[in-house]
Amino acid sequence: MELSSRITNITGGGSDGWGVFYKARRMIDAGINVTELTIGEHDIRTAPDILRAMYDAASGGHTGYAEVPGTASLRRAVAARIAERTGVPTTADNVLITPGGQAALFAAHMAACNPGDTALFVDPYYATYPGTIRGVGAMPKPIVTAPDTNFEPTADAINAAAPGAKSLLINTPNNPTGVVYSDTTLGAIAKTCQDHDLWLISDEVYDTQVWQGTHTSPRALPDMADRTLVVGSMSKSHAMTGSRVGWICGPEAAINHLITLATHTTYGVPGYIQDAAEFALGQGIEVEEAVAAPFRRRRDLTIDALAGQNAVRAVPAQGAMYVMLDIRATGLSGDTFANALLDAEHIAVMPGESFGQAAAGHVRVAMTIDDDAYIAALNRLIQFAQTQIK
Amino acid sequence: MELSSRITNITGGGSDGWGVFYKARRMIDAGINVTELTIGEHDIRTAPDILRAMYDAASGGHTGYAEVPGTASLRRAVAARIAERTGVPTTADNVLITPGGQAALFAAHMAACNPGDTALFVDPYYATYPGTIRGVGAMPKPIVTAPDTNFEPTADAINAAAPGAKSLLINTPNNPTGVVYSDTTLGAIAKTCQDHDLWLISDEVYDTQVWQGTHTSPRALPDMADRTLVVGSMSKSHAMTGSRVGWICGPEAAINHLITLATHTTYGVPGYIQDAAEFALGQGIEVEEAVAAPFRRRRDLTIDALAGQNAVRAVPAQGAMYVMLDIRATGLSGDTFANALLDAEHIAVMPGESFGQAAAGHVRVAMTIDDDAYIAALNRLIQFAQTQIK
Repeated sequence: MELSSRITNITGGGSDGWGVFYKARRMIDAGINVTELTIGEHDIRTAPDILRAMYDAASGGHTGYAEVPGTASLRRAVAARIAERTGVPTTADNVLITPGGQAALFAAHMAACNPGDTALFVDPYYATYPGTIRGVGAMPKPIVTAPDTNFEPTADAINAAAPGAKSLLINTPNNPTGVVYSDTTLGAIAKTCQDHDLWLISDEVYDTQVWQGTHTSPRALPDMADRTLVVGSMSKSHAMTGSRVGWICGPEAAINHLITLATHTTYGVPGYIQDAAEFALGQGIEVEEAVAAPFRRRRDLTIDALAGQNAVRAVPAQGAMYVMLDIRATGLSGDTFANALLDAEHIAVMPGESFGQAAAGHVRVAMTIDDDAYIAALNRLIQFAQTQIK
Repeated sequence: MELSSRITNITGGGSDGWGVFYKARRMIDAGINVTELTIGEHDIRTAPDILRAMYDAASGGHTGYAEVPGTASLRRAVAARIAERTGVPTTADNVLITPGGQAALFAAHMAACNPGDTALFVDPYYATYPGTIRGVGAMPKPIVTAPDTNFEPTADAINAAAPGAKSLLINTPNNPTGVVYSDTTLGAIAKTCQDHDLWLISDEVYDTQVWQGTHTSPRALPDMADRTLVVGSMSKSHAMTGSRVGWICGPEAAINHLITLATHTTYGVPGYIQDAAEFALGQGIEVEEAVAAPFRRRRDLTIDALAGQNAVRAVPAQGAMYVMLDIRATGLSGDTFANALLDAEHIAVMPGESFGQAAAGHVRVAMTIDDDAYIAALNRLIQFAQTQIK
């Protein structure tokens, strides 16, 4: 039986660049002790008090169909948080609760793009971006960045890509690069969206993980609130990755249609999970800072470890739970380096090429294991890189 | 900002037929005591032992990203259940766990249909069906049934609709009619799918609620397993509506692509919910029969209450948590009857017209309140109908 070309083409037919990841998994299954620095997931679990709040909500009877747009109180809590942190007037009517950030990314592109439309994204990119765009039947078009601009898109590159496109997807703080977009970059993005009548889809799921500078939500830039769909999530901010709860924040008219879409795609998010999310948000920013603290600490340790050598250079690690390491001094591709490192040192990192062409000659290191093991692995990676220089 | 025509057209632009439902909600908000017989949701909550299993799984650490296809053990449990009940060899590779039955319906149509393809469904229908088809960019085409064939589609009607279509969506036991499709009907459906190379999307979420006859999964018919995508759910069988956990069962090649789609649309289902679902399935069929028992009992009470009068006739209530009542003897439309009943008796039922044109002159009654209140309301409905006959 034939399947739709839309679904069979989601991966674009190419290698997905996750060969090192699966090779590491096979080695682990074979009993080999591999240090895994591949996955964007905390080395802590969801906090017990959040889980207890969830259980109390479920035991209290919140187990039936929840309101499809999200519970009124969680929508209000998310709106209040966004209004407070960005200064943009935001109400519950601007918020749709979604089963995770990925569902929000998909829904936002469903809203912005018809089949055949062109949707822009920035290379390097989070693994699902081009497939999400293909999944809605649109055409993914990368804006390729370069290491010498710290992987931020330039005004020229954005403008060159924009004619005829319907949407632009950005992610700051950025996975995989750890870069936080400057106000200059965000200004250029906003201008292009206005000049070319683009929807801006702004993935801000790492907004609580900023180590240097400040995160600006582009929805707060002049005249951008009406054309921006912000994707948020409890995953990274509250170590709730598995709970699949996130949101889209945007213009009320768009949210109304996105609620209709949700009725026909997901039919809402478990009520007891929404109650747990509301509880977690109510714990205040201190909880978010505590969840982020290990990555901030390891990022500082990374900079210390890289000092005094030239084999490995860090892309400025301004945010998120990753550092992108430039290993071009070794003469190896990211893919070759990552495979060789896995074979020689049993350390798994992601080749830059897993995230598009722009990050070739780099590897992404997830700072998601405890400090001592992390720094030991990083030091071995540096030593390994030094041995590769001819 | 313009939104995609796909998302703005999901509702098809017409009335959604839920006027009575929202009017009842407004009356309740205004303090009026309304008997609500509109919603397909149990009058019990999810069982405490299932919620405890969920909490234990979460507290035990299953709070990170779960495997996108579903946990291996839940996929195996669902496959074993399907194999045992249908006789069709089924493994975990035939199963994708989804965040609820609605997500499964959407994904199945994404897999079967490209934008512009024609997707068949049976009228009367569950409210989201045509919008789900429009949501994937396909064209919904109803197969209109009739009261005198108990709202089962005829071979002629199915064949007439099939040329050029890509998929056929059926639902047995049926919401809204309560009919369980006969083997003759299912045979005609299977033959048409084979003759016209259609995907069969079989929504079987009410498969544990059969009061008369037997439910046959069409995937078990000869040569149908390769072209059938079965939609299942824990919602109705285990009173887990709000937990949003269901599945698609189908050919392994289709499931593999549906896993890729899930990676780009939902990124899986919370692991602790999957563990709770696995626990619930492990409790055996007795638990499912206990959850279904109130509807079986109320269905029998309904037949007793309807005896000895001619104003209201029940469509044979063979399964599911609804009875469809034929009120054409009153000369009123279902919509007029339901509105008048709400005004006069403060009883809310769904007009048949909410579910398409085929069920005009009918109302759907959800048997979802306790027995005494249910029968009292039904008797008042009958008396009201008798007063409407000229």
